[in-house]
Amino acid sequence: MLLETIRGPEDLKKLNQDQIHTLCDEIRQELIRTVSQNGGHLASNLGIVELTLALHRVFDFQRDKIIFDVGHQTYVHKMITGRLNRFGTLRQYDGLSGFPKRDESPYDCFETGHASTSISAALGMARARDFRGEDHAVIALIGDGALTGGMCYEALNDAGNAGTRMIVLLNDNEMSIARNVGALSSRLTNLRVSSKWQNTKLAVRRFRRIPVIGEPVYHVMHAAKTMMKTALVKGDSIGFFETLGFEYFGPIDGHDVAGLEKTLRKAKEFNGPCVIHVKTKKGFGYEKAEERPEIFHGTPPFLVETGDRAEKPECHSSGHIMAETLMEMAETDSRIVAVTAAMPLGTGLDHFAEKYPERMVDVGIAEEHAATMAAGMAAGGMRPYFAVYNTFFQRCYDQMIHDVAMQKLPVVFLLDRSGIGGEDGKTHHGLFDFAATLPVPGIRVLAPADARELKHMLRWTLSQDDPVVIRYARSGESVPGRKDEKFRPGVWQQILRGKDAALLCVGTMVRHGMTAAKLLGERGISVSVYNCSTVKPLDEETLRKIGNTPFYTLEEHMQTGGFGSFVCEKCAKLSLRRPDICFGVADIYLQHGRHDLLMKDAGLTPEQIAESILYRMEAQQQKGAVLER
Amino acid sequence: MLLETIRGPEDLKKLNQDQIHTLCDEIRQELIRTVSQNGGHLASNLGIVELTLALHRVFDFQRDKIIFDVGHQTYVHKMITGRLNRFGTLRQYDGLSGFPKRDESPYDCFETGHASTSISAALGMARARDFRGEDHAVIALIGDGALTGGMCYEALNDAGNAGTRMIVLLNDNEMSIARNVGALSSRLTNLRVSSKWQNTKLAVRRFRRIPVIGEPVYHVMHAAKTMMKTALVKGDSIGFFETLGFEYFGPIDGHDVAGLEKTLRKAKEFNGPCVIHVKTKKGFGYEKAEERPEIFHGTPPFLVETGDRAEKPECHSSGHIMAETLMEMAETDSRIVAVTAAMPLGTGLDHFAEKYPERMVDVGIAEEHAATMAAGMAAGGMRPYFAVYNTFFQRCYDQMIHDVAMQKLPVVFLLDRSGIGGEDGKTHHGLFDFAATLPVPGIRVLAPADARELKHMLRWTLSQDDPVVIRYARSGESVPGRKDEKFRPGVWQQILRGKDAALLCVGTMVRHGMTAAKLLGERGISVSVYNCSTVKPLDEETLRKIGNTPFYTLEEHMQTGGFGSFVCEKCAKLSLRRPDICFGVADIYLQHGRHDLLMKDAGLTPEQIAESILYRMEAQQQKGAVLER
Repeated sequence: MLLETIRGPEDLKKLNQDQIHTLCDEIRQELIRTVSQNGGHLASNLGIVELTLALHRVFDFQRDKIIFDVGHQTYVHKMITGRLNRFGTLRQYDGLSGFPKRDESPYDCFETGHASTSISAALGMARARDFRGEDHAVIALIGDGALTGGMCYEALNDAGNAGTRMIVLLNDNEMSIARNVGALSSRLTNLRVSSKWQNTKLAVRRFRRIPVIGEPVYHVMHAAKTMMKTALVKGDSIGFFETLGFEYFGPIDGHDVAGLEKTLRKAKEFNGPCVIHVKTKKGFGYEKAEERPEIFHGTPPFLVETGDRAEKPECHSSGHIMAETLMEMAETDSRIVAVTAAMPLGTGLDHFAEKYPERMVDVGIAEEHAATMAAGMAAGGMRPYFAVYNTFFQRCYDQMIHDVAMQKLPVVFLLDRSGIGGEDGKTHHGLFDFAATLPVPGIRVLAPADARELKHMLRWTLSQDDPVVIRYARSGESVPGRKDEKFRPGVWQQILRGKDAALLCVGTMVRHGMTAAKLLGERGISVSVYNCSTVKPLDEETLRKIGNTPFYTLEEHMQTGGFGSFVCEKCAKLSLRRPDICFGVADIYLQHGRHDLLMKDAGLTPEQIAESILYRMEAQQQKGAVLER
Repeated sequence: MLLETIRGPEDLKKLNQDQIHTLCDEIRQELIRTVSQNGGHLASNLGIVELTLALHRVFDFQRDKIIFDVGHQTYVHKMITGRLNRFGTLRQYDGLSGFPKRDESPYDCFETGHASTSISAALGMARARDFRGEDHAVIALIGDGALTGGMCYEALNDAGNAGTRMIVLLNDNEMSIARNVGALSSRLTNLRVSSKWQNTKLAVRRFRRIPVIGEPVYHVMHAAKTMMKTALVKGDSIGFFETLGFEYFGPIDGHDVAGLEKTLRKAKEFNGPCVIHVKTKKGFGYEKAEERPEIFHGTPPFLVETGDRAEKPECHSSGHIMAETLMEMAETDSRIVAVTAAMPLGTGLDHFAEKYPERMVDVGIAEEHAATMAAGMAAGGMRPYFAVYNTFFQRCYDQMIHDVAMQKLPVVFLLDRSGIGGEDGKTHHGLFDFAATLPVPGIRVLAPADARELKHMLRWTLSQDDPVVIRYARSGESVPGRKDEKFRPGVWQQILRGKDAALLCVGTMVRHGMTAAKLLGERGISVSVYNCSTVKPLDEETLRKIGNTPFYTLEEHMQTGGFGSFVCEKCAKLSLRRPDICFGVADIYLQHGRHDLLMKDAGLTPEQIAESILYRMEAQQQKGAVLER
């Protein structure tokens, strides 16, 4: 296999175009094979095989820098930078990460995971290069989807204004961008990368500054070209980037390695900010993924032949139940509108959109805007439900405070994928949300124990006018033994009675708490289990009732700023006994891998919890015995 | 006075242009008079007197909606919507707010304070209107400065794509936008607001979608117009907005009421998203403010005749000392670079920029980008110091976690204006930062007691490689009795010895804690005072040493998620005695007014603290006495 002979990018440079073609096929086979077994991001990686090879043939990423926006499209990059032999461990515990990692390879210069950061990071690295008098290239590789994030615009604006030398490589793989550009655009590309054209442009560029600025000289020279370009190229992309001060190359075919290399070489020589517009096909080379790129964007393990999932998708995921419930509610309440930031499928809202397309607003990857826009809708009399992954909710932290909570507008934030995330790793664990929301006056913070409770909570939200945050895990698995009853805000439901201690559990930890209680029961310790699904306002009455019984808090959240910390603070204020242990994630970043393995790293499995409690109680008994003596 | 006869916007509509002219003069006098006494935002309000009147004459803001971006330019709006008689109380405790407030008037439909939110909010309100089958106008009034915020782009992109009817009123008052547009642009405006032109455009618009999209028909028709426009108008603003799907009106003279009204009427009838580009002069009508608009942007009380400040500006503000220290450090360390998001003056970095213009990066109002760009610079070997107001730091919450902390990059966040803010009110209190940063692994959180300590801390940052957050108040007032020594990270400095209790104080509360200690001393209680300037990692050794002595935590931060809460959590973990009271801001939004009055509302004056501690200690003694019996 040719692929196995590639020990590093230097080996790529020796290949001819035929060999490159063969290599692309081999890489695709390897991608399909590994992702079908481990799960992961397939379509986007299949789409940039040629582009990744062309980049490594033209640049030297031991000195040049490339930042992969979102970072899940680095699989090919990993294979050809000395990590092929570990590629089978992709996304597994202790294996290769599915994202760039600085400690994995010197070829990974900046870590990514959330969208739209690459241009900012690249500009920072380009500025550092200039400050230090170095001269390497800096490239941000970004998809057209991520480009809807406002940070990109801030970065383009800053870079265009500064005139810093850097390359934004726009990987345009969406249906939303016109297909079949064909002959005309190829001609245009050839024209535009010719050096004569560039020189004219360079002379003209001197008169160009930030958006909404211009100089007569620039515009007289610009006008003729603008007209020609606008007429020739489908799309306004040129005008858009040029307004922001960027030179534009493209669009070019992202599956033609020779053509890509030619343009990349030209861009490498360009002394200012430029955009290369590359058109690729998501899922290219695997029919099933080409047909349904959204399904193969991030996929669990699947059967290569049929493209079907190896395991049946869980139809009772929290997102599914959320969307179903919202649809029921929308039937009788015309104020309800669903909001997503480019995640209709992941959040389950695609179901809602099928039934109520006009009441579903997808704003693109733009959480900041989504939150404030929702606040505007609420101020206008609607009831917006913004479903967003917990970790992406971090993007609208200020908007949650400033636009929603301070005005007490009835926006409901639905934080999916809360808690420890799994194979996507540290950028995707939703572990900071209690800390972000609990200090904010006027906002209610809820965490259902399972999807059945989520259903009741959602219905309840319509009965009141406060902003609400509901955090839930992907799985909506029911808690055995929990009575399925109407949601009672502010009241912790006791689902197991015991006399020796109490477990105050939040979200998924209610289920694990029940198992821990069983284990403790086997060791002769009888504990109560509470479902503390209203985190704010805290149920002070139950806290008082627990009185002097030893108790423990359990949550899938950072310990600091979490539920347990909130309970400690409240107990101090009320002069009540405090928790003996606050179970949660300690002050570390959890890595990637299977959820149960990460729970173990965090000390949050039922076995670990039971052991810790036993140990603690024994220590206390000994202490008590000593005191009695 | 004509102004006094204006009881509401209806009265404005009866005036002729001469009377409007007189009214504008009267309003300017009132603005200058009140702001010279109370302090506030002057230049921006002087700049939009005519625009505000024109808006109220064309629209009816009892049903139409207007959202003022940033919100500090609502003074004229307040005067003419029934609040003139209270205008003298502007920004004072229990007086009129300097920002829009929904509970102040039905004319204030959405609250603002941070920049760049208005277009998102307006789009939300426009969508709500459409859902509800209403037909009022929705306007976002936004300055060109705020337009650099990425949220605006997200909102424009969404609105342009949806084609929702709304008006973005671009108040362009900066030098950064070409002056003297003059005759050509006036002709263009007249042309463009004529209905024939609009109808052609409307027909063409059907073929228009989101950026980077186009249709041949559209572009053939578009090309000729583009060329003419580009040639005629200075600046790329038209192309920029049209690419995003907006109709463009302007630029028009923002001090010509009749001209403004004409364009506003046209825009009112336009059935889609449009931008009106209005050119105004900041500080218009008050010579001192026209000359130095940046000084009169937000100003303390001043003398109208000379424009000089009524009180000498404090030259030992924290920002001043920070900039001075950074300059000293930059002299010997070429890695240092300062970053600001459009606040060189407010943060003190203007001094740094004078000496090191090339090592100062101002990215515009774009905190998200600033943080990630700084991360990029740090990854490239630089040492970026990002100075930002505490409350605007909320904008880069995710970037702080995802781009800086997770990669352990040596970015230093300098949070100015931390704690209770004062006259600007609730959107400007910096009270959430500990909660935002303490749960984040790998980041150090510091709070100097005064500017002298800030100086030592800054110097120390260069000796280590972790990300650091330093929060400080505007005033750098020295703590009497505190030894000015080298910063010792992780060690709480004991600055007063006592035996009955200990005060663990953070930041400004060290000074107040010293005063409280004195008051307690007068009542026979001897307390220790600690300066806990390293908040994370906590000084566990000192906590242990305090042992069973009663102690109290003091901070200008929300109680939840703050220093005290962090101490409670840590004491639970270490099985140590917990604080008896955590002094901080309870679960409410503090309003606007003098800092000392707001401190009283929060229960944080030295007198209140001493009283609370006395009460608590007496209660405990009684309890102890009961137990002894």
